[in-house]
Amino acid sequence: MATLAQLIDDLVTANRILATQGIVDSFGHVSIRHPDNPKRYLLSRSRAPERVETGDIMEFTLEGDPVDAKGRKPYLERFIHGAAYEMRPDVMSVIHNHSPGVIPYGVTGRKMRPIMHMCATIGYEVPIWDQRTRFGDTDLLVTSMAMGRDLAKKLGKGRTALMRGHGAVVVGHELRATVYTAVYLELNAKLQMQAEAMGRVKFLSKGETAKVAETTSPANINRAWENWCRKADRPYREQ
Amino acid sequence: MATLAQLIDDLVTANRILATQGIVDSFGHVSIRHPDNPKRYLLSRSRAPERVETGDIMEFTLEGDPVDAKGRKPYLERFIHGAAYEMRPDVMSVIHNHSPGVIPYGVTGRKMRPIMHMCATIGYEVPIWDQRTRFGDTDLLVTSMAMGRDLAKKLGKGRTALMRGHGAVVVGHELRATVYTAVYLELNAKLQMQAEAMGRVKFLSKGETAKVAETTSPANINRAWENWCRKADRPYREQ
Amino acid sequence: MATLAQLIDDLVTANRILATQGIVDSFGHVSIRHPDNPKRYLLSRSRAPERVETGDIMEFTLEGDPVDAKGRKPYLERFIHGAAYEMRPDVMSVIHNHSPGVIPYGVTGRKMRPIMHMCATIGYEVPIWDQRTRFGDTDLLVTSMAMGRDLAKKLGKGRTALMRGHGAVVVGHELRATVYTAVYLELNAKLQMQAEAMGRVKFLSKGETAKVAETTSPANINRAWENWCRKADRPYREQ
Amino acid sequence: MATLAQLIDDLVTANRILATQGIVDSFGHVSIRHPDNPKRYLLSRSRAPERVETGDIMEFTLEGDPVDAKGRKPYLERFIHGAAYEMRPDVMSVIHNHSPGVIPYGVTGRKMRPIMHMCATIGYEVPIWDQRTRFGDTDLLVTSMAMGRDLAKKLGKGRTALMRGHGAVVVGHELRATVYTAVYLELNAKLQMQAEAMGRVKFLSKGETAKVAETTSPANINRAWENWCRKADRPYREQ
Repeated sequence: MATLAQLIDDLVTANRILATQGIVDSFGHVSIRHPDNPKRYLLSRSRAPERVETGDIMEFTLEGDPVDAKGRKPYLERFIHGAAYEMRPDVMSVIHNHSPGVIPYGVTGRKMRPIMHMCATIGYEVPIWDQRTRFGDTDLLVTSMAMGRDLAKKLGKGRTALMRGHGAVVVGHELRATVYTAVYLELNAKLQMQAEAMGRVKFLSKGETAKVAETTSPANINRAWENWCRKADRPYREQ
Repeated sequence: MATLAQLIDDLVTANRILATQGIVDSFGHVSIRHPDNPKRYLLSRSRAPERVETGDIMEFTLEGDPVDAKGRKPYLERFIHGAAYEMRPDVMSVIHNHSPGVIPYGVTGRKMRPIMHMCATIGYEVPIWDQRTRFGDTDLLVTSMAMGRDLAKKLGKGRTALMRGHGAVVVGHELRATVYTAVYLELNAKLQMQAEAMGRVKFLSKGETAKVAETTSPANINRAWENWCRKADRPYREQ
Repeated sequence: MATLAQLIDDLVTANRILATQGIVDSFGHVSIRHPDNPKRYLLSRSRAPERVETGDIMEFTLEGDPVDAKGRKPYLERFIHGAAYEMRPDVMSVIHNHSPGVIPYGVTGRKMRPIMHMCATIGYEVPIWDQRTRFGDTDLLVTSMAMGRDLAKKLGKGRTALMRGHGAVVVGHELRATVYTAVYLELNAKLQMQAEAMGRVKFLSKGETAKVAETTSPANINRAWENWCRKADRPYREQ
Repeated sequence: MATLAQLIDDLVTANRILATQGIVDSFGHVSIRHPDNPKRYLLSRSRAPERVETGDIMEFTLEGDPVDAKGRKPYLERFIHGAAYEMRPDVMSVIHNHSPGVIPYGVTGRKMRPIMHMCATIGYEVPIWDQRTRFGDTDLLVTSMAMGRDLAKKLGKGRTALMRGHGAVVVGHELRATVYTAVYLELNAKLQMQAEAMGRVKFLSKGETAKVAETTSPANINRAWENWCRKADRPYREQ
């Protein structure tokens, strides 16, 4: 079993990987549920993911209150994380990002579906959440538990949801698998865009999607994680 | 309050950031209004932004005359800057660039509008200026105050304007916010292009655009600025 | 004649080149037929190509059994390699990859054809294999000799085949030529996509395709190989 | 006046710049007319441009015979250079490349025209040469003076021509200006593709094209050249 220090180290690594893989720019964030207390989660202070260090990781209650802020300023949108952990006991990690490929789907209503086996963990169809439907004209930021819960509801039992004019949320049963899904959600976005411009697309069937998701093993994910660690200049920890 | 030396240092950093973020190539420029004299502005000598150093920063009157050239050759298009400062007392920084995404909008007349919250500071709709309308066949460079003023008029009260067959101008109330707008203007261009090829786009509403622009705080902009400084190998100064 | 150690060194280099040229991400693999025993092939243990080192190279029977695993875990999809070597005595090297450009062709059924002389070695028309046709809903991985043989049959006498919702397989008479074909298959994919969106494309004729393939000399391929070695931080061995 | 050694040094730099700017990959070449003998030109031996060093530069007669090969192997397609120098006494530098943007124009017959001021030196309209028209099914390489002359004829008095299914040729009155045109030919290709997918394009008028080409001064070109030198890790020589 990994220690808390190792998990925090992995969380810092996840921040750096998401940046070097182009899934976040100076904005976006990734959290894990606290391994010892399911009513808490761990998330960096408000900082660009590529700059995040161990001392930036803060602990929050599910409602988004910092347990011991020590003067550190939290992300305004931390409620995305807390609401997902609250609604989904199976979720152990949450990513919020604005990777470029997902934006056109959110604003056109075009449904994203898995175009290749690497992308099957995004789910058979990615739902789209529009903050405006329930909250009217806002600054589009998820700045309250009410908003976070509305978004979590759209996520349902899935792993991904798009946010109109904003980005996406990705959840998973552990950190590395969640990063993996976020990386391949972006790839799926780019490839689907090109393929649909070329003709009618044969997406993965429901059966194929389920089978790939089942057989996406920790060994597979770690093959990518090792590679991403080196590219992000971070040590690789076997798991 | 930042000293003049610090502001000049930030201006050098802005040049390097615009280059590393792909907003300028070997051409394009960024200026600030002189902090002690609103009738002057500071701008590099004629040099690729990625190469600009402290000693390259020159002082100009709003009409574009160098205050003390010391043999340094100014940019031919400095009038874009002077005319914007002259017409808009609120403007403290000006960027002129040819980032690839904006060109197709200028030449097709397609109106650019904010597609996601990060891009709201570009304004609800970006106007397009065609030098040819008033000046006929030219080399498309803004080489006189008359041309600079005509362009500034098109800018109106906004923060951005496109220039047909040439590029864009971006203005702001301070340097870092102006760089931020230029970076996300380019992102908006790329994403809008893809989204409009996919279907009808739900852009940010007028209300959303205004709300995001209001809540885009210095803290937000500095989160990006810190990250961009590191990527451009420049020291980060908190502000 | 190259020694076995040199060929293994080249195989490691091929892994690194395929990664730095964007032909594989953390997944995909490249093998060579054993120079001394045509019933064996050499392939890395299950690892991201950019991380592969000499000690990772394993020997397999054509059926995919490791000759001396020494605790190393093989790729699940090694049957792609064995089946191609089994069916095609002329094949000395096999690559399996998911480079982004090829995916849209596999899922839309759009036929890929050589658009420029550099890409002629892909063959006059690239066939598409759909695992689902014979094997129904699977996780899309080629995890048995039966699947590998079905794919090899689709390859026929050619050098390339696409796999629907998965990627591609590329074969050749020697390692460097096979890497060359894989690199230019990806370029062809990107350029054909753009060209076909612009209008009717004049592809290479059958005669042109054959002539270019004939005159693609080892000297030509080594010109690229030398350059790719340096970009991948690997020593270049003249051949 | 630059010495021969300085010009050869610049030619090596041009090779490296064309590679780092993405205008050539492992293939393509750049030459200059010999400064002391208009019936000779200087061109690297057959090697990837990014790897070219001083000792690789060879001297050729206009017919393509090496003056003193010293065992070095020349490019097969050197006739592109000789034929351009022969037909056009004003031409002092020639580039042959396959940058990705130009390919779709050559194979669809879509005419490339300058979309922005930076790209005006490509000329008002770029002609397309198809080797097949006169030479039938070939390997598409320009391997004789007859082919080189046919291509040079298509170039006419212009600076650029596309080659169907192959690439482009760019000529100029001096080396740095020719590199500049090759870089912005590629940018024009990419931007025109995107713009024409969005709507009717207002290209530069004939008058604008001529005016920009006139006022593209050595100072302008050197601004880019200084920047490109640093990016290619080459010393910058003022000119």
